[in-house]
Amino acid sequence: MNDHTIAFIGLGNMGGPMAANLAKGGLSVRGFDLDPASRDRLAEHGAYIAESARAAVAGADVVISMLPASHHVEGLFLGDGETPGLLADLPAGTLLIDCSTIAPASSQKLAQAGRAAGIAVLDAPVSGGTAGAAAGTLTFMVGGCKDDLARAEPLLRKMGQNIAHAGDAGAGQAAKLCNNMLLGILMIGTSEALSLGESLGLDPAVLAGIMRTSSGGNWVLEKYNPVPGVMDNVPASRGYSGGFGSDLMLKDLGLALEAAIARRAPVPLGSLAESLYAAHSRAGHGGLDFSSIISLLKGVRA
Amino acid sequence: MNDHTIAFIGLGNMGGPMAANLAKGGLSVRGFDLDPASRDRLAEHGAYIAESARAAVAGADVVISMLPASHHVEGLFLGDGETPGLLADLPAGTLLIDCSTIAPASSQKLAQAGRAAGIAVLDAPVSGGTAGAAAGTLTFMVGGCKDDLARAEPLLRKMGQNIAHAGDAGAGQAAKLCNNMLLGILMIGTSEALSLGESLGLDPAVLAGIMRTSSGGNWVLEKYNPVPGVMDNVPASRGYSGGFGSDLMLKDLGLALEAAIARRAPVPLGSLAESLYAAHSRAGHGGLDFSSIISLLKGVRA
Amino acid sequence: MNDHTIAFIGLGNMGGPMAANLAKGGLSVRGFDLDPASRDRLAEHGAYIAESARAAVAGADVVISMLPASHHVEGLFLGDGETPGLLADLPAGTLLIDCSTIAPASSQKLAQAGRAAGIAVLDAPVSGGTAGAAAGTLTFMVGGCKDDLARAEPLLRKMGQNIAHAGDAGAGQAAKLCNNMLLGILMIGTSEALSLGESLGLDPAVLAGIMRTSSGGNWVLEKYNPVPGVMDNVPASRGYSGGFGSDLMLKDLGLALEAAIARRAPVPLGSLAESLYAAHSRAGHGGLDFSSIISLLKGVRA
Amino acid sequence: MNDHTIAFIGLGNMGGPMAANLAKGGLSVRGFDLDPASRDRLAEHGAYIAESARAAVAGADVVISMLPASHHVEGLFLGDGETPGLLADLPAGTLLIDCSTIAPASSQKLAQAGRAAGIAVLDAPVSGGTAGAAAGTLTFMVGGCKDDLARAEPLLRKMGQNIAHAGDAGAGQAAKLCNNMLLGILMIGTSEALSLGESLGLDPAVLAGIMRTSSGGNWVLEKYNPVPGVMDNVPASRGYSGGFGSDLMLKDLGLALEAAIARRAPVPLGSLAESLYAAHSRAGHGGLDFSSIISLLKGVRA
Repeated sequence: MNDHTIAFIGLGNMGGPMAANLAKGGLSVRGFDLDPASRDRLAEHGAYIAESARAAVAGADVVISMLPASHHVEGLFLGDGETPGLLADLPAGTLLIDCSTIAPASSQKLAQAGRAAGIAVLDAPVSGGTAGAAAGTLTFMVGGCKDDLARAEPLLRKMGQNIAHAGDAGAGQAAKLCNNMLLGILMIGTSEALSLGESLGLDPAVLAGIMRTSSGGNWVLEKYNPVPGVMDNVPASRGYSGGFGSDLMLKDLGLALEAAIARRAPVPLGSLAESLYAAHSRAGHGGLDFSSIISLLKGVRA
Repeated sequence: MNDHTIAFIGLGNMGGPMAANLAKGGLSVRGFDLDPASRDRLAEHGAYIAESARAAVAGADVVISMLPASHHVEGLFLGDGETPGLLADLPAGTLLIDCSTIAPASSQKLAQAGRAAGIAVLDAPVSGGTAGAAAGTLTFMVGGCKDDLARAEPLLRKMGQNIAHAGDAGAGQAAKLCNNMLLGILMIGTSEALSLGESLGLDPAVLAGIMRTSSGGNWVLEKYNPVPGVMDNVPASRGYSGGFGSDLMLKDLGLALEAAIARRAPVPLGSLAESLYAAHSRAGHGGLDFSSIISLLKGVRA
Repeated sequence: MNDHTIAFIGLGNMGGPMAANLAKGGLSVRGFDLDPASRDRLAEHGAYIAESARAAVAGADVVISMLPASHHVEGLFLGDGETPGLLADLPAGTLLIDCSTIAPASSQKLAQAGRAAGIAVLDAPVSGGTAGAAAGTLTFMVGGCKDDLARAEPLLRKMGQNIAHAGDAGAGQAAKLCNNMLLGILMIGTSEALSLGESLGLDPAVLAGIMRTSSGGNWVLEKYNPVPGVMDNVPASRGYSGGFGSDLMLKDLGLALEAAIARRAPVPLGSLAESLYAAHSRAGHGGLDFSSIISLLKGVRA
Repeated sequence: MNDHTIAFIGLGNMGGPMAANLAKGGLSVRGFDLDPASRDRLAEHGAYIAESARAAVAGADVVISMLPASHHVEGLFLGDGETPGLLADLPAGTLLIDCSTIAPASSQKLAQAGRAAGIAVLDAPVSGGTAGAAAGTLTFMVGGCKDDLARAEPLLRKMGQNIAHAGDAGAGQAAKLCNNMLLGILMIGTSEALSLGESLGLDPAVLAGIMRTSSGGNWVLEKYNPVPGVMDNVPASRGYSGGFGSDLMLKDLGLALEAAIARRAPVPLGSLAESLYAAHSRAGHGGLDFSSIISLLKGVRA
């Protein structure tokens, strides 16, 4: 496995530490990012820094990307009408792992183009946040064919702990969107229960303890209580800083909703969650952790 | 403890097995219910059957009630304008434990009347369903003063496993309503995620497995998957029969919403859940288990 | 008609000008309010001011009430357990017109008690606001029997222009709640359309003009545009002052929702409207006109 | 004006009668549709039928299109990667009027491509339905530059009565989406009010009459009551047949929601309306008029 040469495109808050973990794991990594500071950070871990995405993929047998949105991924690999995409440069047999969170339809388009060119494509979005990226404990939700995943798995294990095969091309994205839509609902629903409880005179820590072991139990109560002071080491207890930003939750809810609209699948709670995060973002709180949505319900300043 | 004489009023699907567990535990139980069949069932467990609620409480030092709604509890103990309430009959020092799920304000009214008469009142609604009632594994969420709970605890332990002190009078009801509102949200939210996933081509069992161990994890995925065939021994896998009826969930959501309206507490997902269960009930599905709400999203006949 | 002696209880922002219009119309009015300033204002219009509600009704053949909430009306006429209600004082044949906006069930309770005592009771909540009360152009939505309404009509015409018979006892309240729930939905829905339009680059005045004459046309676009500067003489164009307060809309939505819960009638948009007004109120904007809800969507400070 | 030669692409339920009105108005029309029956129907009105879209535009100085969705319009005029778009064939100075209801972003893309080629492009979606198309009484909501609209206006007047200039390119679509999102909200909100009223014992015709002249007044109460029997000549009174199909409302709500997601504009009632229409469609009612959504609230079979 350590014979692989890996091009890693997109070295931001998530991609940077992921690429560093590959380099620290003894793999040959050729990184690129538009931002010089991100490139410099990776160089410190012994990776080679290329001067363009095109230069990064030269000679690589595996390409990994971690980019912000569908149009970045499509633009990079498939071209944008003006500049041709990188896919045309890759030799047949290359393994392309896109870890970005994008629309399932975009992942399917990329996979289809890959198939035509003899390139194996996996969509492999992650959960676990920047802390998980740094610690190498991410969860990968993977779409694509099983044999390709078998090839990718040793590399993914350098960056994460859980690797779930969700199904065919695009299925990794689909699973991620469903999960994060549900997470948005859990966060708002739990916030409603806790703030209703407070209005009724209950101590939020006591109520959280009761619900956690009852049928209201969920990940938010377990790991990420939105009421300041109930749990240590969560964003709520440090002014909603750090964590997973409200605007990132809004982006994921938007992707889930777009997929639901395209399939005419009713997601009433999911779309209400999107609207509430949009209102929260418009009020200027998009940069705060997504648990700060409780302030919309309590009428306090986040 | 076995010196107690316990009057148990309300011997339905929940109250019946609870009273039976007390009798089987060696306690002297005096039961009453308006329904003769319910009385007969309890008699088989060696309890004394009284011919009226008033007769049941005569000589009892502990009174336990398990009734359908606020007006039954208020009518029984406080009277209804025409007939006087039972509270006037009870000697000072009696312990009254109301296990019904009712409005927190009703519990507070009862507790206040009790205080004036020297009677200790606890609100102690349960979760765990008919199976938990039969097995003696219920959870009690208790409102009232700690010393009174200490008196009640040995009795509650004959009927349940978890006993949580939620706070002052009414706090048990408040905690139950918050928990069950959250449960209604978890059920619909999880159903949305699973049915969106299916629309996107995912296998619901695979998606459920992924989300369960990710940040979408919650009690519904753990114990009560709404998609037929994903879990054994859940209502979804036996035609949505048994379990916790949609109309019972609707009742609890209504109580939560009424409490929220009174406090002007915003519960957007909770009130949407109430509306969806009301639509489900109007369509004729109120008798099916509450996980059947997924059929409203999938457009299939429950 | 001018032989009537009318007791008028509740001389606030609405009741005060209504009672004044009766007095100015040449009728003998005996007013009472707990607030001395309200009493003094009515005295200026030549009405007799009684020193208690009980004193006001002495000798009156018609009693009109305009009070804030269900418990005030029930307390005044039916008693509160401690003090007996005023209904017991009224001679058979009295006509009682309650103009308060309260729960339909409370109006029905009052009507039933009236029937038992030979007193004709109408529920007659109004729309039209303080401006309509002053100008005598209110709309009355009336529940009760037709013959009683025929007796009341000449008096109501001194205070309003439109008198609609909605049905039996409680029907006036029911119609008012349905109408105001719909109004809350129209306000938020119109605000969403206008602010989405702005986000898409449309001029709100142009969009309002187009929708007003299209299938989006509604009372809010016609009379009460929520965007500052689009219409003169609306609260939006004077800092959302005056008009119909957000907290009053929240109260009416709460009453509608309570009625819907009791009947298990699904009102998904109505209950979402209630939650959004509750959030708006919690954020400190309950005193602003109800059209200020647009600020929740636009993320600007109201 | 009658010197114009007009190519009309898309001769379905809306486009067919619109093209016929132009032909009947004495204009030279060259029509095309993929469906032979649609072509034959137009031929009866004296229009020339071309054998392809490309053939239709040959020699035309005005091109009008009426197609189902964004990808049809983009595919026809801009090409789809394989076949080049029709725009390349049109001589500079041509006026292109797209009457389809599509995403504002698609209209803007088309307008931009037109600008580069010296072709004037207007987006001019309509409201008024098939009846309005046949009668020539449509409303056009137009985006694009004023001078181009001035050129188009005499032609539009052959097909419609109201012509509203909404703003720059895409603004016609934006106005249509905002209006139709609001219409979806009005329909559900009015249905909620009427069915809550019925649950409370009100006659829906009486309640509709009261609200129509009160602050709940809106286009649905005025023209399109969803309760069977309240109005003649509406879909509700003929089994929800004819009218504007639920699936078409769902399509428009989906476009509105996609635009809102892209701008991060909160539209809570609008997105809930989309979810409810999606559930209605999944239950098999997509072909019924959009006023049949009331059946989802009443729990009756539509």
